[in-house]
Amino acid sequence: MNKTSQGNMMFKLVQELFPVCRSLTGDGVRRTLGVLKREIPSLAINEVPSGTECFDWTVPDEWEVRDAWVIDPDGEKIVDFNKSNLHLLGYSIPFDGEITLEELDTHLYSLPEQPDLIPYVTSYYAPRWGFCLPHSQREKLRPGLYRVKIDVEFSKGSLTYGEAFLPGEGEKEILLSTYICHPSMANDNLSGPALMAALWRWLSAEKRRFSYRFVFVPETIGAIAYISQNLEELRKKTYAGYVLTCVGDNNAVSFLPSRRGDTVVDKVSRHVLRHRAPGFKEYSFLDRGSDERQYCSPGVDLPVASIMRSKYGTYPEYHTSADNLDFISPEGLQGSFEIYCKCLDLLEGNRVYRTTFPCEPQLGKRGLYPTLSQKGSSDEARIYMNLLAYADGENDLIDIAERIGVPAEELVPIAEKFLSHGLLEICE
Amino acid sequence: MNKTSQGNMMFKLVQELFPVCRSLTGDGVRRTLGVLKREIPSLAINEVPSGTECFDWTVPDEWEVRDAWVIDPDGEKIVDFNKSNLHLLGYSIPFDGEITLEELDTHLYSLPEQPDLIPYVTSYYAPRWGFCLPHSQREKLRPGLYRVKIDVEFSKGSLTYGEAFLPGEGEKEILLSTYICHPSMANDNLSGPALMAALWRWLSAEKRRFSYRFVFVPETIGAIAYISQNLEELRKKTYAGYVLTCVGDNNAVSFLPSRRGDTVVDKVSRHVLRHRAPGFKEYSFLDRGSDERQYCSPGVDLPVASIMRSKYGTYPEYHTSADNLDFISPEGLQGSFEIYCKCLDLLEGNRVYRTTFPCEPQLGKRGLYPTLSQKGSSDEARIYMNLLAYADGENDLIDIAERIGVPAEELVPIAEKFLSHGLLEICE
Amino acid sequence: MNKTSQGNMMFKLVQELFPVCRSLTGDGVRRTLGVLKREIPSLAINEVPSGTECFDWTVPDEWEVRDAWVIDPDGEKIVDFNKSNLHLLGYSIPFDGEITLEELDTHLYSLPEQPDLIPYVTSYYAPRWGFCLPHSQREKLRPGLYRVKIDVEFSKGSLTYGEAFLPGEGEKEILLSTYICHPSMANDNLSGPALMAALWRWLSAEKRRFSYRFVFVPETIGAIAYISQNLEELRKKTYAGYVLTCVGDNNAVSFLPSRRGDTVVDKVSRHVLRHRAPGFKEYSFLDRGSDERQYCSPGVDLPVASIMRSKYGTYPEYHTSADNLDFISPEGLQGSFEIYCKCLDLLEGNRVYRTTFPCEPQLGKRGLYPTLSQKGSSDEARIYMNLLAYADGENDLIDIAERIGVPAEELVPIAEKFLSHGLLEICE
Repeated sequence: MNKTSQGNMMFKLVQELFPVCRSLTGDGVRRTLGVLKREIPSLAINEVPSGTECFDWTVPDEWEVRDAWVIDPDGEKIVDFNKSNLHLLGYSIPFDGEITLEELDTHLYSLPEQPDLIPYVTSYYAPRWGFCLPHSQREKLRPGLYRVKIDVEFSKGSLTYGEAFLPGEGEKEILLSTYICHPSMANDNLSGPALMAALWRWLSAEKRRFSYRFVFVPETIGAIAYISQNLEELRKKTYAGYVLTCVGDNNAVSFLPSRRGDTVVDKVSRHVLRHRAPGFKEYSFLDRGSDERQYCSPGVDLPVASIMRSKYGTYPEYHTSADNLDFISPEGLQGSFEIYCKCLDLLEGNRVYRTTFPCEPQLGKRGLYPTLSQKGSSDEARIYMNLLAYADGENDLIDIAERIGVPAEELVPIAEKFLSHGLLEICE
Repeated sequence: MNKTSQGNMMFKLVQELFPVCRSLTGDGVRRTLGVLKREIPSLAINEVPSGTECFDWTVPDEWEVRDAWVIDPDGEKIVDFNKSNLHLLGYSIPFDGEITLEELDTHLYSLPEQPDLIPYVTSYYAPRWGFCLPHSQREKLRPGLYRVKIDVEFSKGSLTYGEAFLPGEGEKEILLSTYICHPSMANDNLSGPALMAALWRWLSAEKRRFSYRFVFVPETIGAIAYISQNLEELRKKTYAGYVLTCVGDNNAVSFLPSRRGDTVVDKVSRHVLRHRAPGFKEYSFLDRGSDERQYCSPGVDLPVASIMRSKYGTYPEYHTSADNLDFISPEGLQGSFEIYCKCLDLLEGNRVYRTTFPCEPQLGKRGLYPTLSQKGSSDEARIYMNLLAYADGENDLIDIAERIGVPAEELVPIAEKFLSHGLLEICE
Repeated sequence: MNKTSQGNMMFKLVQELFPVCRSLTGDGVRRTLGVLKREIPSLAINEVPSGTECFDWTVPDEWEVRDAWVIDPDGEKIVDFNKSNLHLLGYSIPFDGEITLEELDTHLYSLPEQPDLIPYVTSYYAPRWGFCLPHSQREKLRPGLYRVKIDVEFSKGSLTYGEAFLPGEGEKEILLSTYICHPSMANDNLSGPALMAALWRWLSAEKRRFSYRFVFVPETIGAIAYISQNLEELRKKTYAGYVLTCVGDNNAVSFLPSRRGDTVVDKVSRHVLRHRAPGFKEYSFLDRGSDERQYCSPGVDLPVASIMRSKYGTYPEYHTSADNLDFISPEGLQGSFEIYCKCLDLLEGNRVYRTTFPCEPQLGKRGLYPTLSQKGSSDEARIYMNLLAYADGENDLIDIAERIGVPAEELVPIAEKFLSHGLLEICE
């Protein structure tokens, strides 16, 4: 597999999925998962019936949109769901009638400070109807009677999510989770599933110590439903995890640590980012906003973090019609892919080693150390000796790397070589 | 009870007690406790007989002063105990005779750098006699014969201390201790008993999780005697404690941590002071000087700290005739009262909570979270979610408050609301 | 014993040992140990046969040099082992023949940046022959045929090391180790054995809590052989240790911590150096270079550090003919001796004490505290009270000293006085 060409493949997948009208539930989610199943053949599609209790939550009814529009006093269709699925407030209740501008206005959502953009707004758990539109358009609406039609249907159905599993050598798992519930949003949504597909391609091609669990859920309720069905296994097996979101633009690298902030995923991520993206911005868990809210909640408490490009909530295009295909790029996606590869590689390779006998080994007789002793010394031999000096069954390779000031990825093959020479053994 | 009017009541109590001639033992102490018993009806007065062994110490004989003066060669009474009880060296032995100025001078104590003030000096454990006077007066003494009379009596009697107890819901106790052995000293002594009385009024009016133990002892020997009679119970039950002293002026807020420096009383006090008195000065336990010396000693080892206004030993009026009613104020006393109320409230409210189910609760259905999801978010909802995110059975409310940057007192009612909604439970 | 005259005695010992031709094995080592046995009568000389397996290493054959020289095309002996034993590459194999300058040049070692010095170079574990010479001389060599003679012999023999033991009151030991394998090198070698002899004289003259183990080994292979024969005992008994090297010059004080960096030897050394040599330079264990490499290796893991003057590898004279008697001085040796004495004294005296009863003791009745209570306080009494306040069975004297800001050596006699008064007891 060509690791350097993933950016274009990911970008094409985002393009393909962009027009699909997604929401918490319904056929938009199912169509999205269908496309993803083409990329990840082992993807299992699961349905959780409406009304199912998931801890403190209940799976809502399915929401189907047939049409939605507003016609102005001149008979012109000024807002049309078919032109942008952002126009309709998510989970709007049905409406059909003629109302004054004054009444209509209480149902409109716009952004005065970004007057040309359509905002993305939802009301999943309180019955409302509404339309989202550019503020510049809203300001031009004239008094009069407006025809409004929201032809939607709520029905007992189900919440749909997808899951794929790549078995590894051991029992422990890496959890990769993303969401599939936003309508036409590129960075804050589709970049995540696209990166999941790329990582699946890469990971499925090689033998791995860990198993990998790929989860595609509607945000919040989907993650909660998923956790409620898998809590015991997740708690028992998850070694580390990431929520994949906002990985498509090329403007920044951001890190959101786990709730505890000092778990293995935090350690690995920070180490990789310090070497690979030294200007990265570290946020606090207080800045969280996606499904780490559930995975890290006290009763679940998994070591789950997020590495992002521009973090949700921090860039102007966020949750507007400007978070579109222009905002992301193949280069941005490729960069995210490469950082995640480094992190997953290091999660795999960052073991705790112990020397197998007292005192230093004689590396010289194995051709690993200069045989001539004179002033000045070999840097590589120095790294060898330092790795052995700290391979005491307590330090992992990142601890050693940070102590001696090198990227841990450089120590992984050296430790494996020493393992094969019988100089080191693995401590679990 | 009106919390804002305590300052005046405290100030009046200090005024009433100021003229009483107190020392380690004797009727001055008994009269002081008598006044305090009017304020705290349940105050029990205890007597420890002279000669009682208390660890390394022995309760001294009682000391009674009938009269003490110096008459100069001109026949003028130049130093008179009846004008200021500071004039007589504390625990002076009797003397009656005519001596030269040269000999008299070896028995005089004054402050060259504060020439107009009478110093407060004692010699409890070595037999001496002496007088304290302003240095300006001392310098004017002319050679000649001086008549000196110290009509005092030492007798087997007892050391007197007071103790009151307010029972709470649980077994654990808060210890509040002050001393009652200084003669006419306002900040460094009487402000402490006055604040004790105000806190008793406030605490006795409401239900409390902790029991409260109010202790009034002569400094050092009294605390040691008290501890020697109550060691096992103090060690078993004391959750936190304060030594109340120097709480009357309005010039500073000072904090003296416990010996260990990181106990619950230190944590609560620092948190409250950072929010309520951000310019407060933190001292080291090396700067200690009152009965925390005993309560925190290795063999007792209680979590006892002090919050003061101007700390003993640091202000020029300390241990002089200038530590009088002009140095303290109702405002100073009121400010101390309010800070101690906040600290005691937080000791009561700072519990460790745990969420009762996995994942975030759905606060929206309880009216505690916005039902509309759009850019920007509610600050209050954010605090709710952050409290729930860290309520993991490990962090207490102060830990959470410091993490999210709010005063812990704001979290206490929120946590109690969540407790009543069944979202949280208390971990002990 | 006169502690201040050790510098001259040490310097004389270095002078005496300087001309002896030492290497990893052979009679140079034996002659050196013979001189040391005169200084330390209980020194035991041990022989480990060639071919003995020591963990990953094998004791090499003995190497004996009879003669070694180079004669130039003019018949002049331009390099002569008899003039400086540094001229011959350590462990050179035999050679006898006439070769061109071009071929000779591949066997020459010199320092272009220090053209007037002979470098010290060895090839213990790969068969080579070679000569070391000043670069200025090497550059003047003219083309032609050179007569080369290296009359050396390798034979089954043994590796020789010395060990002395000073029994103390308890089972625990202090390990002092140095090496004896460098030829004519003053700071980086002979200063170590000379300091060992001085410490032996000092330590043997008084009763000690710890036993002391003095080890003289060829570097690396000797330490490994020694450890392989004593591992269990070393691990069980060693309380702390030092590798003594580069203690002869007077230009710097350097500290190389143990591998763990926070053991008792690190704590004691840093405390002493902060007070005795405040400008000392602390290195990292990454800068290690002598037998702490073995003593601290994960499978041995002893708390062993080094206090040096100019550290090996950091001064220009290092491993050259300029590391001679001019580079070191009696004053430098004396300074090292005094610092080690302070460290060993503190290792002995730094105990954990606990007060024997609750509350403060009444020091006044023992004449240890002012009997008059007035403004200002006695500094010495303050130190007494602070020592007692922290003597809680958890802090050792260094912890207390660092908290109260005094050298721990001042606390040792105070604690011993309190111990004799029954105010303190020792916790083990």
